[in-house]
Amino acid sequence: MSPDEFREYGRMAVDWIADYLEQVESRPVLSPAEPGAVRAALPADPPERGEPFDALLRDMDDIVLPGITHWQHPSFFAYFPANASGPAILGDLLASGLGVQGMLWATSPAATELETHVLDWLATLLDLPEQFRSSGTGGGVIQHTASDSALVALLAGLHRVSGGATERAGVGSGSYAVYASTQTHSSVEKACRIAGLGADAVRKIDIDPTTLSMNPTLLREAVEHDARRGVTPTLIVGTIGTTGTGAVDPIHDLGEIAHEHGAWLHVDAAWAGVAAVAPEFRWINDGVELADSYDTNPHKWLLTNFDCSTFWVADRAPLIGALSILPEYLRNAATESGDVIDYRDWHVPLGRRFRALKLWSVIRWYGAEGLRDHVRNGVALAQEFASWVEADDRFELAAPHELALVTFRLKSGDDASRALMDVVNTSGRMYLTHTVVDGRLALRMAIGATSTELRHVRAAWELLRDSAT
Amino acid sequence: MSPDEFREYGRMAVDWIADYLEQVESRPVLSPAEPGAVRAALPADPPERGEPFDALLRDMDDIVLPGITHWQHPSFFAYFPANASGPAILGDLLASGLGVQGMLWATSPAATELETHVLDWLATLLDLPEQFRSSGTGGGVIQHTASDSALVALLAGLHRVSGGATERAGVGSGSYAVYASTQTHSSVEKACRIAGLGADAVRKIDIDPTTLSMNPTLLREAVEHDARRGVTPTLIVGTIGTTGTGAVDPIHDLGEIAHEHGAWLHVDAAWAGVAAVAPEFRWINDGVELADSYDTNPHKWLLTNFDCSTFWVADRAPLIGALSILPEYLRNAATESGDVIDYRDWHVPLGRRFRALKLWSVIRWYGAEGLRDHVRNGVALAQEFASWVEADDRFELAAPHELALVTFRLKSGDDASRALMDVVNTSGRMYLTHTVVDGRLALRMAIGATSTELRHVRAAWELLRDSAT
Repeated sequence: MSPDEFREYGRMAVDWIADYLEQVESRPVLSPAEPGAVRAALPADPPERGEPFDALLRDMDDIVLPGITHWQHPSFFAYFPANASGPAILGDLLASGLGVQGMLWATSPAATELETHVLDWLATLLDLPEQFRSSGTGGGVIQHTASDSALVALLAGLHRVSGGATERAGVGSGSYAVYASTQTHSSVEKACRIAGLGADAVRKIDIDPTTLSMNPTLLREAVEHDARRGVTPTLIVGTIGTTGTGAVDPIHDLGEIAHEHGAWLHVDAAWAGVAAVAPEFRWINDGVELADSYDTNPHKWLLTNFDCSTFWVADRAPLIGALSILPEYLRNAATESGDVIDYRDWHVPLGRRFRALKLWSVIRWYGAEGLRDHVRNGVALAQEFASWVEADDRFELAAPHELALVTFRLKSGDDASRALMDVVNTSGRMYLTHTVVDGRLALRMAIGATSTELRHVRAAWELLRDSAT
Repeated sequence: MSPDEFREYGRMAVDWIADYLEQVESRPVLSPAEPGAVRAALPADPPERGEPFDALLRDMDDIVLPGITHWQHPSFFAYFPANASGPAILGDLLASGLGVQGMLWATSPAATELETHVLDWLATLLDLPEQFRSSGTGGGVIQHTASDSALVALLAGLHRVSGGATERAGVGSGSYAVYASTQTHSSVEKACRIAGLGADAVRKIDIDPTTLSMNPTLLREAVEHDARRGVTPTLIVGTIGTTGTGAVDPIHDLGEIAHEHGAWLHVDAAWAGVAAVAPEFRWINDGVELADSYDTNPHKWLLTNFDCSTFWVADRAPLIGALSILPEYLRNAATESGDVIDYRDWHVPLGRRFRALKLWSVIRWYGAEGLRDHVRNGVALAQEFASWVEADDRFELAAPHELALVTFRLKSGDDASRALMDVVNTSGRMYLTHTVVDGRLALRMAIGATSTELRHVRAAWELLRDSAT
C-alpha cells in the first residue's frame, strides 16, 4: 500500500469509525449471533489475489458488525466497560504507524522514556505514593492486562523471598503461599498455576459479610499458620474494587501483615484505581504506601482503549531479577551502562508495542480536569441508579456501591433475577452481567462507558423495572 | 472528542503516518538520543487542562521522532525486522475503533470466530499439517509474542504429562525437564523460570557444528538420561530459524523422540515460519506434522504490525486444561454449551484485543500472491548480499543462509567486526546487530523490512565494505 493509498484508505477507515461511533447506539448491545454464523459468512480459503481495502470495509459492515457485542455502546453495563476514546484510538494509530518494537531502551529510546514518564504522570494524577515513581527505586510499566501484572508481582515476590533461588531451582513443592480473598479476581489463582505453585498454594481468605472485603484477622491467622509450619508467605493480594461488587480490601492492615512476614503486597485496583484522579475518591488507596506493587487499568475506566494496564513497583530489582535474561543478540552499550530501563525485563513478552502513546494522548487531550469529570460522571450516574433501585420495593441492593458499580437483585429470588437479566440482555437495549453475593445471584450495573449519559441509565432502569413486572 | 473532531484529527494522524513513511528513509535508522534526552523535553507534570490533538502531533515530530529507532526504515537490518504495512495499520485502527474485548466468545462472537478462521487461513497459506486446523481437535490463536507461546506450550505440556496434577499441586522440584538447543531463543529459559521449574530444568543440547541445529543424538541421550532417573521429559522445543543464525532444527527427529517419551513438541518458527507462504521454502517445516504446537510471528516478516504471534495446537484440551478458570462473573450460556471457543483460556491474559482484524486485512490486501512476493524478495536480497560478502577477501560468512538472514564477519577478528558494526550503526545510514557463532562475533544482516529494496541492501554493503577499509 503506497503512502497515497494509505492516505485514501486511512480516511475511509477513520470515517468508518466515526460513523460507527455515531450510530452504535442504534445497534443491539449484545450480539444476537449464533455460534458459527460469522465463520459461515467467510470464504473457506484465503484469497490468491489481493483485494481493495473497501472490500474489507464492506465486510466489516456485513459480516463483522452483526457479530459484535458493542463495548462502546452507551448502554453497555456488563463486566466493566472497557472504554475507548478518540485520542486513545489516534494515539494507538500513531504507535501502529511508527511500528517500533521497544523491547530495549536502545530499540527506541522514546518508547521507553515516554512510558516511564507517562507512568509517573499517572502516578501523580492518582496521587500514588512516592515509592512508585521512577525517581527512586521504583517505577511503572504498561502490561497487557491486570492478569499479567498479578503474575509478575508473584514472580517478583518469589524472587525476593527466595533470595533469587527460585530462578535456577524452581519453586519446589508446597514451600510458598499466596493470600487473596474469596472475592479476589481469578487471575491470582491463574497466576499461581502458571507460576508452578498450583492452585493449592492459594489461601482464599474469607470476607467481612458487611463490607465484602478481606477479613484481616483471618488473613493474619492464615499467614501465621503457614509461617509456623515452614511455608513462606510470598504474596498477599489486596483488591481495590473487586470484580463482583467493587469491595475495597483493608490495604493498610494487609500491608502490616505483609511487612511483618516479608511477603510481597500486590494491590489489584484494575477497575477502581483510576477513580483516584478525583480527590474525593482517593480514600480507596488508603494504605497503598505499604504496597510493593500496584496495578490499575486505564483500559477499563480511563478512556484508553485496550490494552493498557498500568503497573508500578516500589523496587524494580526483584522484578528484573525474576525476569531478566541477556542473550548475546540483545547486548548493547546502553543496557550495559545501567543508565536505562529495558522494559523486556518487566514482563513475560520480549517484544513490546509503543502503548504509552495512547495513554499520553488521552492525558493530554482530556487533561486532569477532563479525567476527573469522566470518573465523577460515572459515579454520579451509578448513585442515581442505586437510589432508584432502593426506592422500588421489588428490588434490593446487594452490596455497598461507593463508585460506579451497583449490584442489585429482585427480592423474589435468583430465578427471577436471572430471568430479568436474560430478558433485558436479549432485548438488545442494554447489557449487564451477574455475580454471586453471599450465595445469591446479583446483577451488576457497571457504569463508565465513554458515551453513557443519564438518559441511557434511566432507560436501562425503566427497562429493568418494566421487565420485572 | 466528538465524531467530527475524530474525523478531523484522524485525517491528521493518517497524514502524519503517510508523511512519516514517505520520509523515514532520510532519518538516521538508529536513534542518536542519549539516555534521558526524551524525558528532559517533556513537562514534569501532566496537564491540568486538555490540549488540542495537533499539539501532540507537533511533539511527535519534535520530541518523539528524535528518540525513535526506525523499525520501518528500509535500511533496518537489526534483530529481525518487525514489518508493518498499510493494511495492517488500518486493520488495527478498526480494532481500536470497535474497542471490543474478546475474552469470551459471547463478548464479541465475531472477534473469536474471525480469529479462528484467519488462523485456519494462515495454516493453509503456510501449508501447515491438518492437526492445527480448528476443524479437528486443534486450532490457532493470536498470542502477543513467541515468548508467550513458549510459555503456554510449556504449561500445556506440564498439564499433559502430569495428567492435570500440576494445576493443583504445582510443579514440585526437579520432576520435569525441558529440552532446547544452545541456540534456542532465551524465551524458553524465561518460560521455565516463569513456570516455576527454574532455569535448571532446561537441558541445553549442543548443536551440529556445520548446520548449527540441534544434535538429535545428544537430545536422545539427555531425554533418556532424565527418563531413567525419574525426571519427566516434558517439553522439547525445536526451532525453525534460530535468532542467531537462522538454523533449522531437525524437527522430525525431535518429534520421534518426543513421541517415544510423551513429551510436548513445540516448534518455535517465530521469524522463519512465515517463509512457508512460498512453496520453495516449505522444506523448513519438514517434520512439523509431529509437533504439538507451532508458533510464527506475522509481526516479524509477514507485514503485520506488532503484536501478532500466531500459535497453533494439535489438541486444544491440555492448553485449556492448563489455563481455564471459570468464576461466576464469566459464566454464560455459550460457554456452557461447549459449542464455542473462549480464547481467554488459551493464554495468560484474560482480556484481549481484536487482533485478527489486522491479519485479515493483510491477507486480503496482499493475497497469497503478494505475501509470497514479499518473502521471496527478502530471500533474494539476502542471497545477493551473501554473494558480495563471499566475493570479498576480507569478509567471511559465519553460517548457512538459506532465508533472509546472513551472518558474516571480518576475518581479522572480533574487535574489527565489532568496530565495523559500531561505525556503520553510528552513521545512521543502516542498523544491524550481532551474535556469537562458534565463540566468535558475527554480524547479522536481517532483511525483510516492508520497504527494503535492492538499492538499500547495496548501499548497506557499500558502507560495510568501505568502512572495513
